[in-house]
Amino acid sequence: MKIKLVLRVLAFICLVVSGAMIFPFVLALWDGSNDAIAFAVSMCAGVAFSALILFFAGKNESSSMGIREGVGVTGFSWLVASLVGALPFWVSGEVPGYTDAFFEAVSGFTTTGATILAEIESLPRGLLLWRSLTHWMGGMGIIVLSLAVLPFLGVSGMAMYKAEVPGVEAGKVTPRLHQTAVRLWAVYVFLTLSETVLLMAGGMSLFDAFCHSCSTIATGGFSTKNNSVAYFASPFIQWVIIIFMFLSGVNFSLYFMLPQKKFREIFSDEELRGYTSITLCSALAIAGVLYASGILRGLEYTFRQSLFHVVSVMTTTGFIVEDYDLWPEFARFMFVILMFIGASGGSTGGGCKVSRFIIIGRQLKSEVLRLLHPRAVITARMNGKPIPRATMDSAGAFLILYMLMLTLGTLITTAFGIDILSAFTGVLTCLSNVGPGLNTLGAVENFAGLPGLVKWLFSFCMLAGRLELFAVFLLFLPGTYRK
Amino acid sequence: MKIKLVLRVLAFICLVVSGAMIFPFVLALWDGSNDAIAFAVSMCAGVAFSALILFFAGKNESSSMGIREGVGVTGFSWLVASLVGALPFWVSGEVPGYTDAFFEAVSGFTTTGATILAEIESLPRGLLLWRSLTHWMGGMGIIVLSLAVLPFLGVSGMAMYKAEVPGVEAGKVTPRLHQTAVRLWAVYVFLTLSETVLLMAGGMSLFDAFCHSCSTIATGGFSTKNNSVAYFASPFIQWVIIIFMFLSGVNFSLYFMLPQKKFREIFSDEELRGYTSITLCSALAIAGVLYASGILRGLEYTFRQSLFHVVSVMTTTGFIVEDYDLWPEFARFMFVILMFIGASGGSTGGGCKVSRFIIIGRQLKSEVLRLLHPRAVITARMNGKPIPRATMDSAGAFLILYMLMLTLGTLITTAFGIDILSAFTGVLTCLSNVGPGLNTLGAVENFAGLPGLVKWLFSFCMLAGRLELFAVFLLFLPGTYRK
Repeated sequence: MKIKLVLRVLAFICLVVSGAMIFPFVLALWDGSNDAIAFAVSMCAGVAFSALILFFAGKNESSSMGIREGVGVTGFSWLVASLVGALPFWVSGEVPGYTDAFFEAVSGFTTTGATILAEIESLPRGLLLWRSLTHWMGGMGIIVLSLAVLPFLGVSGMAMYKAEVPGVEAGKVTPRLHQTAVRLWAVYVFLTLSETVLLMAGGMSLFDAFCHSCSTIATGGFSTKNNSVAYFASPFIQWVIIIFMFLSGVNFSLYFMLPQKKFREIFSDEELRGYTSITLCSALAIAGVLYASGILRGLEYTFRQSLFHVVSVMTTTGFIVEDYDLWPEFARFMFVILMFIGASGGSTGGGCKVSRFIIIGRQLKSEVLRLLHPRAVITARMNGKPIPRATMDSAGAFLILYMLMLTLGTLITTAFGIDILSAFTGVLTCLSNVGPGLNTLGAVENFAGLPGLVKWLFSFCMLAGRLELFAVFLLFLPGTYRK
Repeated sequence: MKIKLVLRVLAFICLVVSGAMIFPFVLALWDGSNDAIAFAVSMCAGVAFSALILFFAGKNESSSMGIREGVGVTGFSWLVASLVGALPFWVSGEVPGYTDAFFEAVSGFTTTGATILAEIESLPRGLLLWRSLTHWMGGMGIIVLSLAVLPFLGVSGMAMYKAEVPGVEAGKVTPRLHQTAVRLWAVYVFLTLSETVLLMAGGMSLFDAFCHSCSTIATGGFSTKNNSVAYFASPFIQWVIIIFMFLSGVNFSLYFMLPQKKFREIFSDEELRGYTSITLCSALAIAGVLYASGILRGLEYTFRQSLFHVVSVMTTTGFIVEDYDLWPEFARFMFVILMFIGASGGSTGGGCKVSRFIIIGRQLKSEVLRLLHPRAVITARMNGKPIPRATMDSAGAFLILYMLMLTLGTLITTAFGIDILSAFTGVLTCLSNVGPGLNTLGAVENFAGLPGLVKWLFSFCMLAGRLELFAVFLLFLPGTYRK
């Protein structure tokens, strides 16, 4: 690995995160609240840290990035961003210690939305904005955002891109990376602003509307209210959020086809179909159970609450309008499954991704058929094209690695005396970057009460899940650091 | 599929199961208890059923078995055995309905050991013996046992054998099937009788010793006592059972190497090493937690109780000496993991099997290394030999299919209002053929309170798990029945 090259990129990311603090800093000054000082201090510290990294990096040795450098940048940049992004929470004194501040920042940048804060509304607006901004930056990946800038640094990041945005295959997105990054950003900004306008039309203040839009488009889940979206009882607002959460869970490369009017190609995309079907079927099933058991009343209301949570969990956003932990066991387990499945590849959502399940389903089918017809050539296909061997292997390996992480994480968490269901859903919600879990980590609970070591474990799970495991695992192999 | 050929084999199996009822019948006559009538009626019904099948089968059309016939025989024979084997429970009136009787018989033949009986000791001895005999017959697979007889029927069953005894690779067991079956049976009988003698030496009656030996060697778990093995407080008896449970979880093909004194080959077997290591590490970890938390006292006692349950769960036997559902969450979750892993391939145990995890682990490692070295040729090995592509694919597909069944089964079960943890461990314990689960299906509970439909679902899971999923799934494909 060309360590110096990686360090230079990390320094740049550190600088971007510190620079972004200017917005909450200005807001804090405007409000005349104390957190302005915290942001000023954090910004200086971030810039200093960045300078320190650059000092160690020294002169540029080479400008070409290989796989090892891509892994290094991907794996460490989220860590660096979170280490620096945690500073305002900690310096302001609003969060008890650095462990909690780091947890909150990781939860932000990984667009998880799990919080260690019980009381949110009493926070100064600067910190609330910062929480949403970490989501927004994390959303498309601070790195993907930086792709438009990185070429100026003289590095080309195709390998990194591959590690960062899974599911976006080389063929789908225009190969010229700079252009792609600009387009992605344009779609991203357009969605955020549209939602902000619509939420304001529904009666939200500009501040609340913008913060919730950032959290929605990034499929994050941080809210400015203690009761999350439940605070805004308006059906219009809830429908707007449902629609934008859903849109954020779609593979962004499909949006690139819109200007070219390739509607047939878009609507025949198997992942989009699978994603839509799972969402609708789950929402109908849960609404049916809720309606039949008399827990919620009114057809539209019941369906809206069910759909809201199905979309919120499946896109791994984690907004709340009802305490679904009180719903029947069937609904609760349904949410566990949806947490696991996650959104589409190439979206801002987390989880295992619908496309992987389609690939694995096709593979299983051909595997069973092969038993009956040992000599036949059976080709598994997706979107009409044969699925390459390597893609199937990698999807299967990912799923098993995910399960392994989930099991080990749960085992370690139970060792601290936390009950199995809380531990399991806690690790799952972190790996899938959802936010809330079940039981003691349920919809109306928070992560404050966990032991410190479990918070670090959960932070690791959030990072590993967001980076799709492989990049993180490679960081632990000595071979990654060899030249 | 050559339906007539399959039907003839099924008729034979039905006859074997009915014939085996002669032993509990004689015992019931000796005891002068009422269940003698039940056995007489069941035997007649079984023979009549067998004749009926033979009538439909008609004349032998061909004697060569293909894959389709193997699947048909494997999939249906366990069903037929259970349908007939359930009769004594039902006819005697000791079990409330046929659903419960069928559940008990499936649990017996699949060597699961989950029971719908709360009060066991009040059952007549004939029925108690029958429960253990269903285990014993199921243990090595009534089909594998029948392999020594099937050749006389003019069918050669290599394809069937492949579906039945997983993990025993063609290369390991002598290819001459008849001889293999006789050897397997010899090992099986030897182990059963040795344990019976040792348990009697520990103070058990012949009846209890024999019943418990049948349940141990088959890794079943039915006991003659309400409190399972906890009834026999003697450390000697518990140690004997621990050792024989462990031995029954070893790949039986390793025992064939004993007469040839291939000790080096046996002890360097990677699955045996993995199986032993997991057992010891888990037992030490759980004993440590129990000792530290002061739940159990005395070093030997704590370790024995921990080891007993680790071996009992991992070999999927399901004997109980303590209510481990009251142990710390860490221990409980450990048991969930062990249920999932299961014993060695080619043993009487269930679960996913240690060998599959070794194969998948090697595959994952080579998959991660391939990311770093895209052009390198990386070969995954087991026992020094390269793992064939098809074996890896099949191990991965199995694991994912297992998880899929587990998830779907749990979802259906929660729809009946059963809590997530009970539902999940209930389905898991059935799929892995263990016996007890957690919570409402825990160590000192039973399956009587479940809704009827859930009992049928669980019965299906036991069958599917015992037949390693694929054979059962193929039964649902129309292609299986084509000629």
